Amino acid sequence: MTIKEIIKPSKQLHMSGMLRIESENDRFMGPGRVELLEKIIETGSISQAAKLMGMSYKKAWDLINSINQHTTKPIVTTQTGGEKGGGTIVTEEGKQLITAFKKLHSEFNIYLSEKLEAFLQS
Amino acid sequence: MTIKEIIKPSKQLHMSGMLRIESENDRFMGPGRVELLEKIIETGSISQAAKLMGMSYKKAWDLINSINQHTTKPIVTTQTGGEKGGGTIVTEEGKQLITAFKKLHSEFNIYLSEKLEAFLQS
Repeated sequence: MTIKEIIKPSKQLHMSGMLRIESENDRFMGPGRVELLEKIIETGSISQAAKLMGMSYKKAWDLINSINQHTTKPIVTTQTGGEKGGGTIVTEEGKQLITAFKKLHSEFNIYLSEKLEAFLQS
Repeated sequence: MTIKEIIKPSKQLHMSGMLRIESENDRFMGPGRVELLEKIIETGSISQAAKLMGMSYKKAWDLINSINQHTTKPIVTTQTGGEKGGGTIVTEEGKQLITAFKKLHSEFNIYLSEKLEAFLQS
């Protein structure tokens, strides 16, 4: 039998997947970290971003430090004091990383649908 | 800056990922299910396969039933009694599914290394 004959045609199948970029002993980038960075951009605050993600402030900082350790320039920086009373920003380099990772993920989603199609016809 | 300049060259990065085939309300096939099927082939027993996977016998059966619901022929069958005192087998269709899914996954791993390379040079 072929795979096409083995799988019930009535089942609407889809293929899901996830990508992560890791270094030897740590993670560098994945969907959760991208979401955290986006929420920092939205809110201008690590504590608010952490809250929106349902994680502790400490956990958010751990993730940011982990990302920053992989890059030549910081991806997230905080300013204390000043006219606006400080704030947290995602740097231009951070925004570039977000864009590049999301592009990787959307290409991956296209790959998944093509591969599933081929699998179901095999 | 380019992504290549943003990421520290000293970090040995790799990209990891995972694939699952799902139906509307259920999962059909993923790495854990393939491993369970392989262990059933190895041991000829659902309870031993479950034990090796650190899952309950009930959980293993739930997964098998879930797989079988997506296929036109059962992927796992049990025989009770008989000369050998029964046993569990993964059918030819099940073996075909395992092979096809593992092929999908190894192609996927090649895709991941190519994509990471392109990402790091971008």
